Parts: sequence; C-alpha cells; structure tokens
Amino acid sequence: MPRYVIGLDFGTNSCRSLLVDVTTGRELAGHVFPYPSGKDGLIIDASEPNLARQNPADYILGIEETIRGAIEKGKLAESGFNASDIIGIGVDTTGSSPMPVDEKGQALCFQERFKDNPAAMVWLWKDHTAYKEAAQITQLASDIRPQYLSKIGGVYSSEWWWSKILRCKNIARDVFDAAAGWVEICDWIPAVLTGELSPDKLMRSVCAAGHKAMFNPAWQGLPDAEFLDRLSPGLGSLRPRLYGRAYTADNRAGTLSPEWAQKLGLSPSVAVAVGAFDAHMGAVGAGIAPGTLVKIIGTSTCDILIHPSSQPLQDIPGVCGIVDGSVMSGYYGIEAGQSGVGDIFLWFVNTLVPERYGRTPEEQFSGLEKTGSALKPGESGLLALDWNNGNRTILVDARLSGLLIGQTLHTQPHEIYRALLEATGFGALVIIDRIEQYGVRIREVVNCGGLASRNALMMQIYADITGRPMKISRSEQTPALGAAVFAAAVAGSKAGGHDSVGAAQKAMVGIGREYRPVAENHRIYRRLYSLYRQMHDAFGTQEWSGRMFNIMKELLDIRDEVRRPA
Amino acid sequence: MPRYVIGLDFGTNSCRSLLVDVTTGRELAGHVFPYPSGKDGLIIDASEPNLARQNPADYILGIEETIRGAIEKGKLAESGFNASDIIGIGVDTTGSSPMPVDEKGQALCFQERFKDNPAAMVWLWKDHTAYKEAAQITQLASDIRPQYLSKIGGVYSSEWWWSKILRCKNIARDVFDAAAGWVEICDWIPAVLTGELSPDKLMRSVCAAGHKAMFNPAWQGLPDAEFLDRLSPGLGSLRPRLYGRAYTADNRAGTLSPEWAQKLGLSPSVAVAVGAFDAHMGAVGAGIAPGTLVKIIGTSTCDILIHPSSQPLQDIPGVCGIVDGSVMSGYYGIEAGQSGVGDIFLWFVNTLVPERYGRTPEEQFSGLEKTGSALKPGESGLLALDWNNGNRTILVDARLSGLLIGQTLHTQPHEIYRALLEATGFGALVIIDRIEQYGVRIREVVNCGGLASRNALMMQIYADITGRPMKISRSEQTPALGAAVFAAAVAGSKAGGHDSVGAAQKAMVGIGREYRPVAENHRIYRRLYSLYRQMHDAFGTQEWSGRMFNIMKELLDIRDEVRRPA
Repeated sequence: MPRYVIGLDFGTNSCRSLLVDVTTGRELAGHVFPYPSGKDGLIIDASEPNLARQNPADYILGIEETIRGAIEKGKLAESGFNASDIIGIGVDTTGSSPMPVDEKGQALCFQERFKDNPAAMVWLWKDHTAYKEAAQITQLASDIRPQYLSKIGGVYSSEWWWSKILRCKNIARDVFDAAAGWVEICDWIPAVLTGELSPDKLMRSVCAAGHKAMFNPAWQGLPDAEFLDRLSPGLGSLRPRLYGRAYTADNRAGTLSPEWAQKLGLSPSVAVAVGAFDAHMGAVGAGIAPGTLVKIIGTSTCDILIHPSSQPLQDIPGVCGIVDGSVMSGYYGIEAGQSGVGDIFLWFVNTLVPERYGRTPEEQFSGLEKTGSALKPGESGLLALDWNNGNRTILVDARLSGLLIGQTLHTQPHEIYRALLEATGFGALVIIDRIEQYGVRIREVVNCGGLASRNALMMQIYADITGRPMKISRSEQTPALGAAVFAAAVAGSKAGGHDSVGAAQKAMVGIGREYRPVAENHRIYRRLYSLYRQMHDAFGTQEWSGRMFNIMKELLDIRDEVRRPA
Repeated sequence: MPRYVIGLDFGTNSCRSLLVDVTTGRELAGHVFPYPSGKDGLIIDASEPNLARQNPADYILGIEETIRGAIEKGKLAESGFNASDIIGIGVDTTGSSPMPVDEKGQALCFQERFKDNPAAMVWLWKDHTAYKEAAQITQLASDIRPQYLSKIGGVYSSEWWWSKILRCKNIARDVFDAAAGWVEICDWIPAVLTGELSPDKLMRSVCAAGHKAMFNPAWQGLPDAEFLDRLSPGLGSLRPRLYGRAYTADNRAGTLSPEWAQKLGLSPSVAVAVGAFDAHMGAVGAGIAPGTLVKIIGTSTCDILIHPSSQPLQDIPGVCGIVDGSVMSGYYGIEAGQSGVGDIFLWFVNTLVPERYGRTPEEQFSGLEKTGSALKPGESGLLALDWNNGNRTILVDARLSGLLIGQTLHTQPHEIYRALLEATGFGALVIIDRIEQYGVRIREVVNCGGLASRNALMMQIYADITGRPMKISRSEQTPALGAAVFAAAVAGSKAGGHDSVGAAQKAMVGIGREYRPVAENHRIYRRLYSLYRQMHDAFGTQEWSGRMFNIMKELLDIRDEVRRPA
C-alpha cells in the first residue's frame, strides 16, 4: 500500500505543498498559496527600502490551503489515494527569519497592541534594516570572540538573527521587552503543527542556530551573555530565554496536533519533522552526498556541501557557514554562495539588450542563448567579473562591483551575455577550488532552481569551466521534496516511511539531465580561468600585488587562436 | 574689392571646396563631390578586408566639379562675386596615401595595362594590407636606425608610405618596377593644378614627408639606401628617384596651369599652395597657436600642437610625430591621437542601447545626452578605458581593449554612455599631461569635427576633466578653411591676400562656442582621473606593478559622496 508524505516549503512570496510517494519519490500533487498580507506577501515601508517583514498568520492560512489543495489534487491524480495514506510532514522555510513570541510561543503581532507593528512580525531574511547592528556584531566578535566568526565566513550579516534582534531592541524597545523569546520560522511552523509552541519546549533547528545565530557546541551553544551585553546592555538577559540545544531535521518535532489533524482530515499520528532552511533541505532533495556539491541557482546561488562529521574538517575561509548536522545528521553542512547570478543576467537583458534579440525578456533570453551558443570559449575576447551585487564566497565583500574587459568596436550583446554566464561559472569554480583546497573533494555538481533547468547554455559552460559533470535535479521543487524526505525519515519504516534520511533520499530523489565537460572547451577555459583568477585576486583582495599588462594580450591571443581556422 | 580663395579638401569618400573671403573668413559657398569609383569612393576587395584604394581620376573630376560648384553657388550668395576675384587655391588630403607614378608624374593606373590593378592606384590612408611590412620596418629601424622611430612614436604604421611601397614591391613587382616615382596625393593634386607633375620637380609636403616617410634633415632627408636595401634588396635604388627637399605649405607650388584656368574660368595667376594633410591644415583652420591644442574629433581624434622651432623640444614618447614645419613654418608640428572616440559611442549606441532611449541612433544619442547630462561626475560609480580600438597616444598599442568597471544591478545605459565620454576625456588628458611633461604648455583646447559641435555634454565633460577651456572652432570645415588660409598666404598681400599664414589665420579663423570648466566637477574628476591613470598604466604598460584593490572601493566612495545630499 503506497504511503505519502508532505513537504511544506515557505518562501518569500508564497508557500507550497508537495505530496510525494515515499517509495518512488513520485510527486503526486502540489499546491501554491500566495501570502495575502502586504505587497506580494511582504510588509514593506516606502520610507525604508531595507525593511521586509512577513505576517505569520499567512503561514497558518498557508498550511491549511496548501495541504488541502494537495490532497484534493492528489485524489484527482491517483484514484486510490487517500489522505490517511499520509504519514509525515516536513517543513522548510527562508531564513534567517526570526520573530518575537510571547510566553506561549504565539507571535507578538497576534496581540492587539502589536498587530500593526512591523517589529513584532517576522523579520524576513531579506530585511536589511539591521546593517549597522551587523557591523557592530562583526566588530565586537572580531575583537573579543574571533571564534564566533570563523564558522561563518568572517562577517556577520544584517540578514541574520542577532542583528535583527539587536535592531529590534534599538528601535522598538516595547516589542523587545514584550518578547518572552524569539524563534526562527523554520522552528515555529513545525511547532504550530504539533501544537507544542512553548518557547522552552519548541525544538530548534541546528541549521538555523548554527548558520545564523552563532550557535556551536564548542562554546556551549549561543554566544555568551557577556558578549551579548557588550553588544547592548540587557541583551544578555535574553540568552537563558532562548535555547541550549538544537536539533537536526531527522528528529521528530512531534505528531500532528488533534486540532490540525481534524482541520486537515489527516491522522493525528502523522509525524512532523524538525524544520530547516530551504537551501539545506533543498540540497537533500537534489541528491546531496559527500563529493556532490548542490547549487541552488536563482537570482543568486546557495551552494551546499556535506562532509562526514567523523572526519576532520578545518575552517574554510570565505564560506558562509560550517555547521554539524545543518543538512544531514552525521555530516558537517557547508554553505557557500554567489551574490549575483540570475540577477546579473536579468539586469543585462533588461538594461542593455536591444529589441532585435526579442521583444520580451523571455524572447531576448532565448535569442541570446541561441547566438551565444554558437560562440566558442574565448572567441569573444571578453572576460567579466560577476560582482555586480558584490561577492559572497570567497571574498565576503559587498563593496565590489562588476567589470567587463576585452570590448572592441565589434563586440555584440550575445558575446557579453556569454561572458556574464562564464563569469558566474568562474565564480563557481573559485568556490569549488577553495573548498577542495581545504580537503573536501568535489566530484560533481547537482544544480537545481529555475535557471538550472531553463538555461542549457549556462549549464554546459559550467561543466566546461569546472571540468565536472553538471547534473540537474529531477525535481523542480527540491526544497519541498527535501522536506518530504525528512518527513519520510521521521515517520519511520514501521509507518511505511524510511529508517533514515539517507534511505529516504535514495528512494525519493533522482537526477534528470546531465551535462558533461567537453575536453577542448575545458582546456580553453583553464586559460581564461587563470585570467579571471588574476582579476579576482587583483580587484578583490588587499594582499594581491603584481602586473596586469598580460590580461588584454592573453585575451586577444586566445581569441585569435580560437578564431583561426584549424 | 573683396578677394577670395578656395580650399580643396580631399577626404575618404568625397572631396569638397570652400570659397572663403580672405578679409573676413566668411565662407561664401562650398560644394561636395562624392567620388564615383568603387564603393563610396573606395576600391575594395571582398577577399582582403585590409585593402582600401582610390582612383586618382576621381580627384581630377572632383577639382572641376567642386570648384565650378562653389563658383556658381558663390554667385548666388553674393551678387558682386566674380570668379576673377579668386586669388589662390590650397589643398589638403588624407594621408599617408601614396601612389606610383610614371616619369611624367601621371598615375600608373592611367595606363591601360594597369588600369584595373589596385597596386597601381592610390594606397589610401586606411589601407592596412602592409601590416607585415610595417612590423618589418619597425623591427629593422629599432635594430639599426633607432633615430628614425624617435620622431614617430616608436612604431612605424601599416598606414604609412614605406610600408605601402614595400608591400607593392612584395606583391606587385610589375607595378613597382614600372613606377618612376611615388607621390603622396597631397603633393600630386597641387601639381595637377599647376601642371608641374614631373616627379623630380613636384614640390613635396614636409608634413607628409616628415610624419609618414621618416624624412628628416637630421639624417639628410629620407632613410638611407642601405636601410632600404636591408628592408628589401633593390628598394634603395628608389631613393634617388624620390626627393631630397620638402616644403611647408606656405610655399607656392606654382600658379594655375593655363588648361585648368580655362577649364574653371579662373585667372592663370591664381596661386596654388604646397599641400598638406587634412588634420594639419585643419589645425590652422581651427586657430592653432602655441599653447593651443587642436583636437579634430571624429571616429577617432587627431591632436595637433605647435611649438616654436627656435625653442628646444625633446622627443616626446608616444606621440605620433614631431616635424618641423608640418603645420606652420617656424614651428614644430606635434601630432598625437586617440584611436577610438566617436567610434566607441557609435558602437555603444548601435549595440547596447535599447529602444526606450529612441528609435534611431540620432534619437538615442539625444536621449542619452539628456539623461547623461543629469548625472554628476562620479555619480554612476563607473569608470571605463577608451581602448575598444586600441590606444594610439601615449601607449601606441593596437592590442588593447575596452574595459568597464563599477557596474551594479542598477547601472543604466546613460550612465555607461557618460562613462565612455569621460573615458575619452581622461584619454585626452593623458595626452595633454604627456606633452606638458616634456615642456610644451597647453593652456586651452580648440575642438573641431562633427562631434565637437554636436556633443555639448562631451565638451563640458572634457572641460571639467582637463580643467581647461574647451573652445569650438567657428568653422565646420576646418581642413578646407585651413587650405584656404594657406591659399591666401601664397597669393600674397599684393594680390589682395595676406603676407603670412599667421596674418591670414588671424583674419580668417575664429572661435564659436566655449565651455568653461566647473571647479567642483574638476575636483571630482581629479580623483577619478587618478583611478583612470592607475588602470591605464596597469593594463597598458609592462612596467606597472602594484595593487588594484583600491579601485572599486574608491569608485564606490566617490559615488556615495556625490549621491549623498549636501
């Protein structure tokens, strides 16, 4: 008898459910719920462009709508399907997206006095109001607790937990004082489903804790009270009201509460997994394994890798985080990323591509891909740096910018487009090289996200640049599928699920298309990569010193060699 | 009684006449004649894109058509005007544009056996078939006659006299052997008018000889026979059939031949001046004087300066040529140039500017100028190198390429357009700095050419970058006007002309609009220029070595300072 699990994926503008067969990974049905609050689900402030909040009531509506929708569609897709065949629910969310809660674990903004106060809502991952607080945290940690920074790439972000809480204390003291505790929404939503909301009982995700809250067993959990009080007197008193333990997502948060079971028409025995972030569960849904890098490619990329916890692992400078268990239990989760990928291509198409390539951005992308595919590596003579939005890994520096070199009077838009694709490929290889340099081998890459499945030219270029196979995840909803994998694992084999995340992943996750590197292209890209690396280090690091005269010459040499008929 | 002179300007696709009042400089009339031969006047070869020749018969037709046209229009413009009031003719042409001639000075291609042979035609300035020969000349001179290179920027060009003659010897031996001599068309056309065509009597222009044929009194004229024979055995035997003297254009080549006087309805007493190149006569027509740089701005720029021959002048590394008398008698003519100016802007508009800026290139330029003018210096955060077509002065390197730095996800086309304008302004300042560094002061700049009169934004940016007034020539036909100035000088005051080029220039040449530097803009551009200079030296010279990390940071700092409200 087939068994099913539900992955719930809470994104920036909407949430979605995915109903998955635990034996085959078949995605029976799914349902999307756009958040009704604010503008496209975001509470914003015209006078403060850095502000981005969410209304947690949207999540509760979303749980109900998306699960009901998936069940209805599942019945249409499979006549034998029954809601009672559902044995588990997994949850992934954006993050760091913290929220202040009362002593019962309810959102402060559910209280009448705070209902219109953005500080009492969810501080969404992309909220950057706390940039000064982030700089203060980085500075203080660098002065007195350098170990806190060593696991997170050396710089604490305005997107993260402590920056936002400190910001709230600075600008909305009433909210800060009213908060019995703070939760990440990846912790809160599973707790809503189990009914165990109380802040001191709610099971915290090690993924959120380790990557965003500087939680690490090496220093007994969260940053110490002295550090917090040095940041802001009184902040230290929050520490005992937070948490001392954090859990991997193969732990069961509990079972579905009787209220939710009744509302959704599900069994109260349905297991609910501890939550985690979308990228990390998405990596599992894409087929992450030791030696396999998962790239989630969208406007930017999130790169996820795992390394057995039983083997030694040094700190890797420039990666965003190394957290034991943040992806899968028994492995270090390593997170890296590129600040601008799809965003750069979209900027180029929206800004600098004339209409002869197409009238809409879609047509233009298609026209650029067609003409750009006809070019050989090196043929345009162009080289770009992919820093229009700064550089996350390995430079961890937002104050960088884009660069294009090699233009002539004949340079065409599709040549620049291809150079931008290549720049992001070189940027990807810098990350791979850095991680391998610290002892973690990367044999292949699994790519997921919209660009990976849509942009065949980009994927072939990545294969040719890195000299590694580029595989595309079979599922187009890897975060939700990853959440479903964890649901199947916490449901357990007795209930018809699986014994472990590994077993569940093996059964449920697969690869679609694969791009293999072309040796001749790789050979040319090795030469271009050494020029990229020279530019990268010259413009991106304080240490580099040397000559640049070779760059234009070598680009012209390579161009001339490639263009010359054999 | 008003007296008139005619300036004849022989360009790449057409020639033109300008009928000018010698007392006031008033341009009474002009007439353009598009060359009938080939494609737009160019004899080309689909299988050899470097080839560009002209049919000298077009010049003869052009003399007749343009002078007759000007006289007819002059009569309509001024009822009192009579062809007998014309007292002189001056000639400027492109160059180096050499042509093989027979012992009577007639073009070899006028002979039946050579009439379709491109090697027997005019090797137009932009013909680049002789690039290998140019490299050979540079190499040999650098080995055994370094002094030959010291006056021409260190590199002999494929566009120049000896490269083309050597090429002819290499690939069309019959033509080379049949040639009694070779002439520049700026020497040949005045000779056609006077009827004194014989190669040993024809008066050679010191402008062409000195800038393009390595002619210099310091080594008794042209390169010695040993050098020529080392280039190619037998080439040395051509030397005695060429010339041992060269003349400034304030010399009279003669008077109009009876045949031409009759054909044109002019007096046979009309004086004909020795010819020179368009840029050099154009500089005179723009008002060149010591301390005044003339920039002729088109697809590229030609920069002309004069320095009294009585004062010492060192060689200036990187300038294209230093030739005594090439612009005006009694002065060194200094020639420099930028390889890409209008060409870069046109490339950008044709390639990367979307239709929302306008439907035609004209509308797009207008849209870019409007939006680009609203920006402050530094506001875009962008910096460009103006090397899409290589760099002539001061790097003398065709194997360079364009560069743009500072792009974000918000960068707009008009910001890039302005950065490209600024890049050419910085390039202009590099030339000014180099020349001043060698003791020649530049107090102001007079600009001419289409871009100078059309592009007010560019001219204001140049004033702000250089901190010097940018004046615009009153005439839009400065080469033809300059030729007319020389015509008035060789006609002499007794005939109603002038006693000297200086006196003629003072009477006939004027300034139109003037752009003055804005101190605050200049202050910001000083900072940007130091970054440009760093990039220029880093990418353009073998010697430079250092760090580049500051570039992106300083561009962002300047941008943030400029954007911040005061």
